[in-house]
Amino acid sequence: KQASLEDYEETVQKAKEAWKIWADIPAPKRGEIVRQIGDALRKKLKVLGNLVSLEMGKISIEGVGEVQEYIDICDYAVGLSRMFGGPMLPSERPGHALIEQWNPLGLVGIITAFNFPVAVYGWNNALALVCGNCTFFPLFSRIIAKVLEDNKLPGAICSLTCAGADVGAAMSKDERLDLLSFTGSTNVGNQVAVDIQKRFGKCLLELGGNNAIIVFDDADLNMVVPSVLFAAVGTAGQRCTTTRRLVINRPGNYVEPTIVTGLAHNAAIVHTETFAPILYVLKFKSEEEAFAWNNEVKQGLSSSIFTKDVGRMFRWMGPKGSDCGIVNVNIPTSGAEIGGAFGGEKHTGGGRESGSDAWKHYMRRSTW
Amino acid sequence: KQASLEDYEETVQKAKEAWKIWADIPAPKRGEIVRQIGDALRKKLKVLGNLVSLEMGKISIEGVGEVQEYIDICDYAVGLSRMFGGPMLPSERPGHALIEQWNPLGLVGIITAFNFPVAVYGWNNALALVCGNCTFFPLFSRIIAKVLEDNKLPGAICSLTCAGADVGAAMSKDERLDLLSFTGSTNVGNQVAVDIQKRFGKCLLELGGNNAIIVFDDADLNMVVPSVLFAAVGTAGQRCTTTRRLVINRPGNYVEPTIVTGLAHNAAIVHTETFAPILYVLKFKSEEEAFAWNNEVKQGLSSSIFTKDVGRMFRWMGPKGSDCGIVNVNIPTSGAEIGGAFGGEKHTGGGRESGSDAWKHYMRRSTW
Amino acid sequence: KQASLEDYEETVQKAKEAWKIWADIPAPKRGEIVRQIGDALRKKLKVLGNLVSLEMGKISIEGVGEVQEYIDICDYAVGLSRMFGGPMLPSERPGHALIEQWNPLGLVGIITAFNFPVAVYGWNNALALVCGNCTFFPLFSRIIAKVLEDNKLPGAICSLTCAGADVGAAMSKDERLDLLSFTGSTNVGNQVAVDIQKRFGKCLLELGGNNAIIVFDDADLNMVVPSVLFAAVGTAGQRCTTTRRLVINRPGNYVEPTIVTGLAHNAAIVHTETFAPILYVLKFKSEEEAFAWNNEVKQGLSSSIFTKDVGRMFRWMGPKGSDCGIVNVNIPTSGAEIGGAFGGEKHTGGGRESGSDAWKHYMRRSTW
Amino acid sequence: KQASLEDYEETVQKAKEAWKIWADIPAPKRGEIVRQIGDALRKKLKVLGNLVSLEMGKISIEGVGEVQEYIDICDYAVGLSRMFGGPMLPSERPGHALIEQWNPLGLVGIITAFNFPVAVYGWNNALALVCGNCTFFPLFSRIIAKVLEDNKLPGAICSLTCAGADVGAAMSKDERLDLLSFTGSTNVGNQVAVDIQKRFGKCLLELGGNNAIIVFDDADLNMVVPSVLFAAVGTAGQRCTTTRRLVINRPGNYVEPTIVTGLAHNAAIVHTETFAPILYVLKFKSEEEAFAWNNEVKQGLSSSIFTKDVGRMFRWMGPKGSDCGIVNVNIPTSGAEIGGAFGGEKHTGGGRESGSDAWKHYMRRSTW
Repeated sequence: KQASLEDYEETVQKAKEAWKIWADIPAPKRGEIVRQIGDALRKKLKVLGNLVSLEMGKISIEGVGEVQEYIDICDYAVGLSRMFGGPMLPSERPGHALIEQWNPLGLVGIITAFNFPVAVYGWNNALALVCGNCTFFPLFSRIIAKVLEDNKLPGAICSLTCAGADVGAAMSKDERLDLLSFTGSTNVGNQVAVDIQKRFGKCLLELGGNNAIIVFDDADLNMVVPSVLFAAVGTAGQRCTTTRRLVINRPGNYVEPTIVTGLAHNAAIVHTETFAPILYVLKFKSEEEAFAWNNEVKQGLSSSIFTKDVGRMFRWMGPKGSDCGIVNVNIPTSGAEIGGAFGGEKHTGGGRESGSDAWKHYMRRSTW
Repeated sequence: KQASLEDYEETVQKAKEAWKIWADIPAPKRGEIVRQIGDALRKKLKVLGNLVSLEMGKISIEGVGEVQEYIDICDYAVGLSRMFGGPMLPSERPGHALIEQWNPLGLVGIITAFNFPVAVYGWNNALALVCGNCTFFPLFSRIIAKVLEDNKLPGAICSLTCAGADVGAAMSKDERLDLLSFTGSTNVGNQVAVDIQKRFGKCLLELGGNNAIIVFDDADLNMVVPSVLFAAVGTAGQRCTTTRRLVINRPGNYVEPTIVTGLAHNAAIVHTETFAPILYVLKFKSEEEAFAWNNEVKQGLSSSIFTKDVGRMFRWMGPKGSDCGIVNVNIPTSGAEIGGAFGGEKHTGGGRESGSDAWKHYMRRSTW
Repeated sequence: KQASLEDYEETVQKAKEAWKIWADIPAPKRGEIVRQIGDALRKKLKVLGNLVSLEMGKISIEGVGEVQEYIDICDYAVGLSRMFGGPMLPSERPGHALIEQWNPLGLVGIITAFNFPVAVYGWNNALALVCGNCTFFPLFSRIIAKVLEDNKLPGAICSLTCAGADVGAAMSKDERLDLLSFTGSTNVGNQVAVDIQKRFGKCLLELGGNNAIIVFDDADLNMVVPSVLFAAVGTAGQRCTTTRRLVINRPGNYVEPTIVTGLAHNAAIVHTETFAPILYVLKFKSEEEAFAWNNEVKQGLSSSIFTKDVGRMFRWMGPKGSDCGIVNVNIPTSGAEIGGAFGGEKHTGGGRESGSDAWKHYMRRSTW
Repeated sequence: KQASLEDYEETVQKAKEAWKIWADIPAPKRGEIVRQIGDALRKKLKVLGNLVSLEMGKISIEGVGEVQEYIDICDYAVGLSRMFGGPMLPSERPGHALIEQWNPLGLVGIITAFNFPVAVYGWNNALALVCGNCTFFPLFSRIIAKVLEDNKLPGAICSLTCAGADVGAAMSKDERLDLLSFTGSTNVGNQVAVDIQKRFGKCLLELGGNNAIIVFDDADLNMVVPSVLFAAVGTAGQRCTTTRRLVINRPGNYVEPTIVTGLAHNAAIVHTETFAPILYVLKFKSEEEAFAWNNEVKQGLSSSIFTKDVGRMFRWMGPKGSDCGIVNVNIPTSGAEIGGAFGGEKHTGGGRESGSDAWKHYMRRSTW
């Protein structure tokens, strides 16, 4: 049963109240709660993984993998809960110091996409919690609520809002939502982001990708073939990091039926994220051309080259190389590690989730 | 003479060409150019300062101070040109590493406000340049162009666009502008930001402030009086960090005519940035109330308390304390150091300029 | 039964072999092993805590606390295993970058003191492991060995060497020990450090403390009394962070028999770490004098002031304030958090364990 | 005329007095003084460079290059003076925070080697000064003293001690020297370090190197030949980063007379730093062997491979790759940039000068 706008209103109010308690708990203690959440999920890993697999229509191993990613980010967040913080900087004024203080935002709304509902929620939930925020979201709420209860904390710290588009629209416009983390299509993401910008709110966007692998002459084909295969058809081509364009300078025969060759690099269909295991194969003449084709689509999520050349690798990473958020060498476009910052530039939205300094999305900074 | 849209078009094209050269120059060499710009300004400090003073209608010492701030940020940027960069992080995959690469954005447009035209431009210009970007802006262009010429570099690296609202609107919508740094009113800033968000562009906003000083019983009045005076009337009350609200728990007599007492803390006029040396004096009953009044305005730039109490100081900095970007203790709201991150939350726009990690605004990050 | 030099030789050789496997395991996977170690300890927390309590002669709650600290640092190290690493820095050379690479040292010897055998070992063990090192040490080895075995890893990754002074001396001189972490007395520590320096080896020293609490007039006595009491007599006065000197400007009556008053601030006995719950009370005249007395002992571990004064707090932290590694305000000298860097200056040895960048002790850095 | 021990005593006392003033000056203001020192040197760059060239017997361009490096590090230190500092970390305790405070050490002694007297002094002097320390050293003292005087600061902030071995020995043992930065031979460096360790003092060692270039089959010989030539004979082979061993798997003819072939990789002479342009050429069979030979010498300063292979590059950087402080790919062993951390492992001493976090050598850290 979906939540009404009245339900939503009540949920927000409860979460705002719960935050007053949560914000006062020291970050390492919040980390301990998150550790317990991770442990509770670990105990039910297979059951939950299969549930995800059934509901999303992906293979079981990927369902389990998603839950495992939630568990991993919980472990990561436990360590982070003793590490984040700003620097102390020298001041011009005698006997004074500049200190950068990071504080929680308050209430973080999370809207995830159908293809990775659990991992993306986990990334947001675990980091937002250790940073001192309360969050919204449906799945697993009973497991999380149990951990909170066992620690005598209000369940509203992690609220449930299984709801439709009306609540989604309300969230974009709701000033009490200190951050809205949105994963989904570029079109909806754009509307969400504009609504939030109008109220000077904060959002974290993970939108579409249109990811290319460039294979150079000097690449090791033993690495290329399985990489491209998995990257193009894994998760039924429904990852935002799925390879959708394969750029090679080498003729050959390619397996039907999911590979399309002979299109122009700038054909409209090649610039669109199809969200199916369709791979466009494009033939390039020079490194410069291959890099340019990688960059000419609107999206900027993931990108790979296969090469043995050290110099080319550094050019690929440099100011005139790939303009994506994820820039791989000799590994495919799909997949990501929680230790790195995950997300993309341009129409992919610019957000970063998971590791590195992604935690800064969930906090506000003061200089004093 | 103001630039037409044709002039603007030509300028952007030249700047985009110039960037191809600039991006290839190693960052420490770009730092050396910025050092020379700082030195060229240093040699004409007084002349330039007086020019600013005349044109903006502020006292000479403040005009000189602005130019000095440009010089200081140049010196800062020289050091930064050998320091910025992302971390190398451990990877899950054997023999692999995660590396965070920061690259220049490309072309940075800068629109500054009438009250601090030079310092704000300098902050943006110096950092954008060492990060590897080209920039737009009017003043001092001849001095900068000379330095660039002396180094056999195209002047378009720092372009001149003295223009009107039509060019401003064009800039907001121009996809070739990789970042637009806007300093000005909240109303215009909102429109600029929404236009930029629609095209998934990047902006850096420094909008209005409505800054409070809270004076507690235990404050040292020898510090409070001159601080409040300068913070309220310095620069004719036309700093974005000017103190506009004084929150005290203590009756007394206050100097006319620029101080207004007796208003409710939530009177509409008190929540508006007047941009004149008008100071509203409000009397509070408890620390909680004083902090709440500080936070209840839409703007979130600067804020101060005067107190001797260590515990109160930490509460003021904490999650339930000030929600501003600048959180001072025993110094007034006005003024800032280039070493810290300058900017504010909420309707102030969320941007950060000058020190700390403000350089990240001018770059894009890839994980590989 | 203590290990002979032959046993030691065999252990080192096995550990060196085991390292070849361990170093190839990605850091986050090493983190997963450390997580399992923490979990195995968590399951036996009370039993192990009581064992420590019996063996060391401290109260049960402190024994359990030590094991808990080992568990906590394991959780911390799991997160760290995805975070440590050096920056990528801009290079002068076109198309080039400076990268700072951190690699494991290899084999880390750990010698701990009788008073905190478990926590100190845990700090070293957990960090050394995720950083990619093998370690030596007695206690808990069976629990750790079980975790390693379950993961099909050689037990020699964490070796057992319960041994006497001859092995200790051999370790100081053994070039195959890439780091020797030594906790103990200043005298032995000095000899160990000199032996290691002779072979250009690396050590991490946590030696004696002689810690003072300074109580100012404006202190909150409700906070001072229990703090001083616990800090002076907790763990039977056998913490390296035990308060040994109490510096006040205020006459009064003090509880016998463990408090000694009337000594000169520079009496020889006051400058010696007694390792018993004896507290010397000294009366000071000025802030400057109190700070000087704090600093005049050879040791430099922990120090506290009790005051409400913001200005004094910043002077206490500044270049002319406390010269200790731990500088507290309104909390006593004893105790530490794993998130901070634990250790002291001067004759305390200069090492840092536990949080912040203490992990750097366990790695070597290359610039490329 | 060399200083006597009495002169030394007086100098130390004056420097200690001067420090009381210097430590109170805010770091960015200290940066401004260092900027002026850099500028004063810049004005006399050629004259000073030629003086160095004459006195040290190296070519003029290298003399000028040394002074330029001093100037560059001054510019770097100006930026650094607004940036260094520790993090603020989350605490377990409610309403509390862990802050890492970095303070100056006090007095830094600097002993440099004959081959790079100016650059090495400059690295130490500029960083030590902005960090808030006073320093000792001979050359350029008049230029520096003038800058200090012009700013009404005591000249003793940068003292002159042109002295012999007796003063050197006294410095090692003098507890008032908070840091001794020593560049020179491994033998003397070892004695200095042991003396300093005996008193629990701090030192920064830059000792000998024995640097290898490994040339793989797939290397670009157009890059290798000039690189090896310059690295082996530049500065008359008197750089600590001079290439002394060339490891190749490829027969050929080599230019006499400074190249020695046919020696065993472990011949005693090959393991010794000759400090002359003599290059030992060794032929290897496998990557593993080549890496092992690179690592088998006692010294651990600089090392290079020439290869096009991405995989080999990452193995070279990894835990089983080079054990040196500087690990290059496709550039020779000699040369370094001030933005990176310069120094080496093992008998090279372990110190790091110049960029990155080398500034931490000149400060002490407190956790509060």
